[in-house]
Amino acid sequence: MTTAIAGRVPTEADLERWGLADQAHRPGRLAALRERMAREGVGAYFGVRRENTRYITGFVLAEGEEKGAGNSGQFIVGQDEVIVLADSRYFIQAVEECPEARMEKVYNDFPERWAELLTSVGSPKRVGMEAGFISHAQWDVLAAAAPDVELVAASGWIETLRQVKTADEIERVAFACAVADAALERLLPTLKPGLTEHEVALALEWEMRTNGAEALAFDVACLSGPRAALPHGKPGARRLASGEVLLFDFGAQVCGYRSDMTRTLFVGEPSARDLEIYSLVARAQQESQDAIARAIAAGGTLPSGRAIHQVSVDLIKAAGHGDHYGHGLGHGIGLATHEMPGLGASAADTPLPSPTVFTIEPGVYLEGEMGVRIEDVMWLDSADGRLDRLTLFPREVTVVG
Amino acid sequence: MTTAIAGRVPTEADLERWGLADQAHRPGRLAALRERMAREGVGAYFGVRRENTRYITGFVLAEGEEKGAGNSGQFIVGQDEVIVLADSRYFIQAVEECPEARMEKVYNDFPERWAELLTSVGSPKRVGMEAGFISHAQWDVLAAAAPDVELVAASGWIETLRQVKTADEIERVAFACAVADAALERLLPTLKPGLTEHEVALALEWEMRTNGAEALAFDVACLSGPRAALPHGKPGARRLASGEVLLFDFGAQVCGYRSDMTRTLFVGEPSARDLEIYSLVARAQQESQDAIARAIAAGGTLPSGRAIHQVSVDLIKAAGHGDHYGHGLGHGIGLATHEMPGLGASAADTPLPSPTVFTIEPGVYLEGEMGVRIEDVMWLDSADGRLDRLTLFPREVTVVG
Repeated sequence: MTTAIAGRVPTEADLERWGLADQAHRPGRLAALRERMAREGVGAYFGVRRENTRYITGFVLAEGEEKGAGNSGQFIVGQDEVIVLADSRYFIQAVEECPEARMEKVYNDFPERWAELLTSVGSPKRVGMEAGFISHAQWDVLAAAAPDVELVAASGWIETLRQVKTADEIERVAFACAVADAALERLLPTLKPGLTEHEVALALEWEMRTNGAEALAFDVACLSGPRAALPHGKPGARRLASGEVLLFDFGAQVCGYRSDMTRTLFVGEPSARDLEIYSLVARAQQESQDAIARAIAAGGTLPSGRAIHQVSVDLIKAAGHGDHYGHGLGHGIGLATHEMPGLGASAADTPLPSPTVFTIEPGVYLEGEMGVRIEDVMWLDSADGRLDRLTLFPREVTVVG
Repeated sequence: MTTAIAGRVPTEADLERWGLADQAHRPGRLAALRERMAREGVGAYFGVRRENTRYITGFVLAEGEEKGAGNSGQFIVGQDEVIVLADSRYFIQAVEECPEARMEKVYNDFPERWAELLTSVGSPKRVGMEAGFISHAQWDVLAAAAPDVELVAASGWIETLRQVKTADEIERVAFACAVADAALERLLPTLKPGLTEHEVALALEWEMRTNGAEALAFDVACLSGPRAALPHGKPGARRLASGEVLLFDFGAQVCGYRSDMTRTLFVGEPSARDLEIYSLVARAQQESQDAIARAIAAGGTLPSGRAIHQVSVDLIKAAGHGDHYGHGLGHGIGLATHEMPGLGASAADTPLPSPTVFTIEPGVYLEGEMGVRIEDVMWLDSADGRLDRLTLFPREVTVVG
C-alpha cells in the first residue's frame, strides 16, 4: 500500500470511494455500539464528540467548529434509529451527509426537545452520555429536562471501536503520511541558517495544504537549537543556525484521517555529542518496533502499549538519559491526532489492538542545549504478520543548510 | 486610531507594549473578579476557559491547544493569590508568562492535588466553577476529591468583565481589522472566474498570515453564487463564475485579539435583483449603526443589543425578506471571535456596555440563488460620543474579475 501511495495526492475519485466506504461501515459500527449499550444496560446513547459524530453518523465538522455549532452534530443512538441534531445553519449539510439518520432541527428549544426525542426512541430509563465532552452546565440542563431518565457517564465506548481500523481508514492515514513526507522533502533544499522558525513552519504548512492536505492534523512545530528541548514549544522568531538541530513535528489530514511525524535534522555538520543522542533515539525507536514485530511473529497475544513504552525507557535509561525522556512512546491516530491505543507509562495494560495505526516517538531532551525526537506512524496487522512504517521519510541523519 | 493603523503591521515594539499593558491590567481584573466572588459568596474561583486564562493570568494557549494540554492553563483565584497549573511541557512557558502567579506543576496527580490547593488558598467552603467549560467527568472527579466543598456553577463572571475593553485591547482589535482589510485589498486583482472557492480562501488566509496575523480568528469562508446563501458554508471545489456573488467572511488575530468582517463582492456585472438585495443589506447595516449613534448623541442609557437587532429585522421584513434573515445582527469580539455583548433576538435586554467592540452583520439569503452579508467591527465609547468603524474596507458595491 505505502509504495503505491508515496508521492500521490488524493483525487476526487479517492474521496468518493472513501465516502462510500464510511457509509458501508456505519451499520457495523452502530451494531457494535448497541452491543456495548446492551452490556452497560442503557437504552440510548447521547454523543457530542466531533470525531464520534463523524464516525457514527457521517456528519462532518472541522476541528474546533463544534464550539460554535450549538447542538449541531450532537446525536442520539436509539435501538432502531439514529437522530442527528442540526440547526438551520447546518441542516442542509447534515441531510446530505447522514442519509440513514433521522434529522432533527433544534436551536434554542433544545433542552425541551431532549426529553421528547428520548421518548421518540422508546423512552429509555438509562442513557449513556459522553461525560468527558459534555460540559457540566449542559449535563445539568439535560438532567433537569428529563428527570425520570438516569444519565450514565459513558467513557471510551466509541473510542474503543475507533482504534481498530478498516483498510480504507488505514489507507487515508497512509495518504496523510505521504502528504507530510512529500512536504518535508520539498522543504529541505530551502532550509538555511537565518530563516526564522516561524517562517519555516509556515512554509511547511503551505506545502501540505496546497498538496493534498485538507487541513493540518495540528499546528506545525518547528524548533531550533535549545528550543528543540521543549516537547511542546511553538515556532517563534528564533533563527536557524549552523551546528544546531532543527526539529519538525507535524501532520496532515486527508478525508478526516491524520498523520503525525517528527524529524530532527541538523543544520550544518552535527557535533559528536548530537550524533550520539540522535543514534540513541533512533535505536530506542527501532527496538520498540522490533519488540512488537517479534511478538507478531511469535503469534499469540500482542504486548501492551505500556510494555512497549517500557522497552524504550529501559534503553534510554541504560544510556544514562532516563531523566531526559519524560513523555509516552506513542499514541493511536485516526480521526483524532491522539487516540487509543496509548503507548505510555499510564496506558492500559491490555494487548495492542489489530489492525490499528499508532506512532512511535521516543525523544531525548537536554534542557537549554538540544533535543531529538523521531516519530513514525506504524501500521500493525497481526493476522497478516504485518508491522509497516507508513511514514517513509528517511530516518537517517539528515544535514541541511 | 484607525487612520493611523490602516496598512500597518504590528511590530515587536507593539507586542512588547501590549504585553506590558496586559500585565498592568491584571490587578484590576482580579479585583473585579474577587468583587463578583464576594457577591456570589464563593471563596475561590476555578477557571479553565482558554480566553479567561489569558485574561486573568497571562498564560497563553493557542486556539484548540487546551484540548491536549491536560490541566495546564487551568487556574484557581483565591483571596490573596492566583494559582496557575502547568505540567512539565508547559511549565517554563507558564513561569515566564505569569510572573505574579504561584505556579503549580501537576500531571496525573491533579485530582488529589485539587483539595490540597484549595486548602492552601484558605479552605473555601464554596468554589465558583466554569461549568460551561468543565466537562461533566472532570466536575465529578473534582467534587469527589473535595467532598466538603460546594461547587457553584459560575457562568459569565469573567466574560462580563471582558466585554468592556481598554484602549490597548481595542487597538489590537483595530490592528486585526487592518490586517484583514489589507489582505482582501491585495486579493482583489487576483480574483477571476474559474478559481475555486478553496483556492481563493487559501490565498486570503496566506495574505493575512504572512502580513501581521499571528493566526486566523476562524477558518476563512469563501462562498460563490448560490452557496453564499449558506450562513455557515465551507469553501469547496465550486468555481467563481461571472454574474455571481462572492462572499468572504474572515478575520485575523493580533496579540490575542481578533477581527471579523464580511464582504459580498460581485464577479462581473451584478443583476438588478442582486444589487437590490445588496442595497437592502447595506441599509440595514447603516440604520442599525445610526440607531446606536443617535442613542449615544442623546446621552442617557444605551439601547440593548436586542433592540438594535430588531431595527435590522424590521427594515428587512418591511422589504419583504423577513424569512431570509435568520441570524443575529452581531456579537462582541475580543480574545474570542464571539463574546459578549450579543446583538440578537435572544440577547439580554440590558444596555450595551461601553467602551466595547462588536460586529454589525445583517444578511439576506435566497436559498439556491445567492446571499449577501456585510459585516464591520464597530468601536463604541459613549463617554467619548464615539461609534467608529474599525473595518475600513469599502462597503460600496465592488465588482471583480
